[in-house]
Amino acid sequence: MLEETGIRVKKASAALAAATSDEKNEMLRAMARSLTENAGCILEANKKDIENGRKNGMNDAFADRLLLTRERIESMAKGIEDVIALPDPVGKILWETTRENGLKIQRVSVPIGVIGIIYEARPNVTSDAAALAVKAGNAVILRGGKEAFLSNSCITDSMRKGLENAGFDPDIAELVRDTSRESSLEMMRMNKYIDALIPRGSASLINAVVENSSVPVIETGAGNCHIYIDKYADIDMAAKIVFNAKTQRVSVCNAAESLLIHKDIAQYALIAVKAALDEKGVTLYGDEICRAICPDIQPASEQDWAREYLDYKMSVKVVPSLDSAIEHIGKYSTGHSECIVTEDKSRAEKFLRLVDSAAVYHNASTRFTDGGEFGFGAEIGISTQKLHARGPLGLSQLTSFKYKIYGDGQIR
Amino acid sequence: MLEETGIRVKKASAALAAATSDEKNEMLRAMARSLTENAGCILEANKKDIENGRKNGMNDAFADRLLLTRERIESMAKGIEDVIALPDPVGKILWETTRENGLKIQRVSVPIGVIGIIYEARPNVTSDAAALAVKAGNAVILRGGKEAFLSNSCITDSMRKGLENAGFDPDIAELVRDTSRESSLEMMRMNKYIDALIPRGSASLINAVVENSSVPVIETGAGNCHIYIDKYADIDMAAKIVFNAKTQRVSVCNAAESLLIHKDIAQYALIAVKAALDEKGVTLYGDEICRAICPDIQPASEQDWAREYLDYKMSVKVVPSLDSAIEHIGKYSTGHSECIVTEDKSRAEKFLRLVDSAAVYHNASTRFTDGGEFGFGAEIGISTQKLHARGPLGLSQLTSFKYKIYGDGQIR
Repeated sequence: MLEETGIRVKKASAALAAATSDEKNEMLRAMARSLTENAGCILEANKKDIENGRKNGMNDAFADRLLLTRERIESMAKGIEDVIALPDPVGKILWETTRENGLKIQRVSVPIGVIGIIYEARPNVTSDAAALAVKAGNAVILRGGKEAFLSNSCITDSMRKGLENAGFDPDIAELVRDTSRESSLEMMRMNKYIDALIPRGSASLINAVVENSSVPVIETGAGNCHIYIDKYADIDMAAKIVFNAKTQRVSVCNAAESLLIHKDIAQYALIAVKAALDEKGVTLYGDEICRAICPDIQPASEQDWAREYLDYKMSVKVVPSLDSAIEHIGKYSTGHSECIVTEDKSRAEKFLRLVDSAAVYHNASTRFTDGGEFGFGAEIGISTQKLHARGPLGLSQLTSFKYKIYGDGQIR
Repeated sequence: MLEETGIRVKKASAALAAATSDEKNEMLRAMARSLTENAGCILEANKKDIENGRKNGMNDAFADRLLLTRERIESMAKGIEDVIALPDPVGKILWETTRENGLKIQRVSVPIGVIGIIYEARPNVTSDAAALAVKAGNAVILRGGKEAFLSNSCITDSMRKGLENAGFDPDIAELVRDTSRESSLEMMRMNKYIDALIPRGSASLINAVVENSSVPVIETGAGNCHIYIDKYADIDMAAKIVFNAKTQRVSVCNAAESLLIHKDIAQYALIAVKAALDEKGVTLYGDEICRAICPDIQPASEQDWAREYLDYKMSVKVVPSLDSAIEHIGKYSTGHSECIVTEDKSRAEKFLRLVDSAAVYHNASTRFTDGGEFGFGAEIGISTQKLHARGPLGLSQLTSFKYKIYGDGQIR
């Protein structure tokens, strides 16, 4: 059923891959303009989505994520304009060599081809993801959640109309017009038409894609991020970093969820950190040593060490050594972002070398794991897998490469 | 059932990832030495494998691929020594930046972790693959074919014994001691213990892994490699390149399988190329125009355009233009290696830009798509997928990266 979509988008991807930077920016401009022009119909579609959701018992938090306003549509268009301003990641010579036989070999960045994106809730992902994919020369097949179906359809139609009116092939971006589970599974098996699949959303969505997809997946995973306060930490700095990493925005994957404290400074550090977190009413779940220091800390269960709370909650444990902190993180971390707070550089370097996560910090908040903060411009998610791309997925991570080999008749 | 193996190897991988270059080379030296020392028992095991195979009707070609001799074992040990001589791909700073807030961010190459390799027939893959994985800091779970089970077991045991005697953890390399289909499927679902899976072997093996694996796969695919002789080609050069690419070794994935010739030079070029290929008795399967020029060319069916013959056979077609050559390749190629022969640089550049394959050649044989020829040293296969790695999989392609971020208290 999706095959027809696959054929169309794959066909469009060949011409897009050959487009110049100027042409791609022109496409993006047409998409942005058309979003603004069609704001009225997008708002109407969104209203219907929310009405339908309310009938099915959608809660306020969900409705808010789904809600579009004129301002939010403007900011979606602005998001596309921001992507236009980023440098083109395609056509860069990543490596080159000339062999003894005279062959000149270049590794050159190229688009991946067709990227599939499976996502939930927020309709702005429709234009954000399409813009990043197109800038990197990739056509895109989008599949949003059923709750946002009318919104996503209208956003996609607007972008496609904009492309068509500007003389471009609208099939560089298409939405799957079927939100059944079957269509989702079909999409995950479309190796012939889709080169990479990126799931964005809840852990259960991501797991379903990892489990069922034969198309290569870039996994954007959960973050059980740790902060380890070493015995040589500046406690004041540690308290500020923990406070920021835990409370600045609790619902995001780079927020801290687990706190480890070296035994030698446990009492002083825990009291300082807890005083800061108390301001925001953070509930701590701690081991026996922590509870001996601060009796109002809740008892932690084994599950707490692995939990991504996404809430004003945090687990806390006292560890006997740097090594045991590293070992604890190796056991419970999701491989997203971890931080050591210490004034001892060699201990910091050991932590950064041995902790196997996408981003490892010395004396800074885990909240910096973000495409914008890393200087990539926009991002499409944070990868916690090790193949292809790890950490923030910016434009460069949406490219592949090919080898160009120049000879004058060489044979083996 | 494999879980116990997964736990052991994953555990060993953490220490291996932290090992220095010297330590890893010491491990490899111990593995190589032990192969030579245990050559007698390896040959005995191999003899049994071949006897068992013969009883089950194994043919001569298969038996030859399976056969080990003292020289072949020496060359496996030598293969490990060659890997020792290669530079360590781990710990390289791939990119760095300092942000306005003072955060210093480094992207540093790190091991992938645990690599699974599923392969067929040739027992030398057991040591070749293990050596490359270990050099890049990865532990490895090997799963060879059932025909080579005793050989592979004895090779693995020798390497493990060598590691243990030298004081290293033998669990950095282990063989799945069960060649049932179930164990293969179980291995493909071991996301908890295996970070990447590389299938090596027939198209059906590779397809089975792509279809069934939830572990991220690096696909080493088939090669329906094309050579396009442009109207501005040096015909003599073209004939030499086609002859080499088709006949130097017919059984490999970078051998040419399909020939396209521009109509303006079809007669002259086809006669010249055919004269060269006739020396090796290559059978050509051509379209009507080719058959009008050389009536002893066999008629090509639609299937011939997509075929990877791996034999003294080749399809040949006359095309009206460069564009139609590119289009034909886009339709039938497996994305491995393609070549244009032309004296016109802008036409060559267009071909190299628009043909979406791992390696695209101007005036050179497709046989150069090879880790050794590219200067990577050894390789573990040729990737035809676009995520993570494309083309020859050398040591660098067996690494991931992490971000190290250095701060002095930065918060968001």
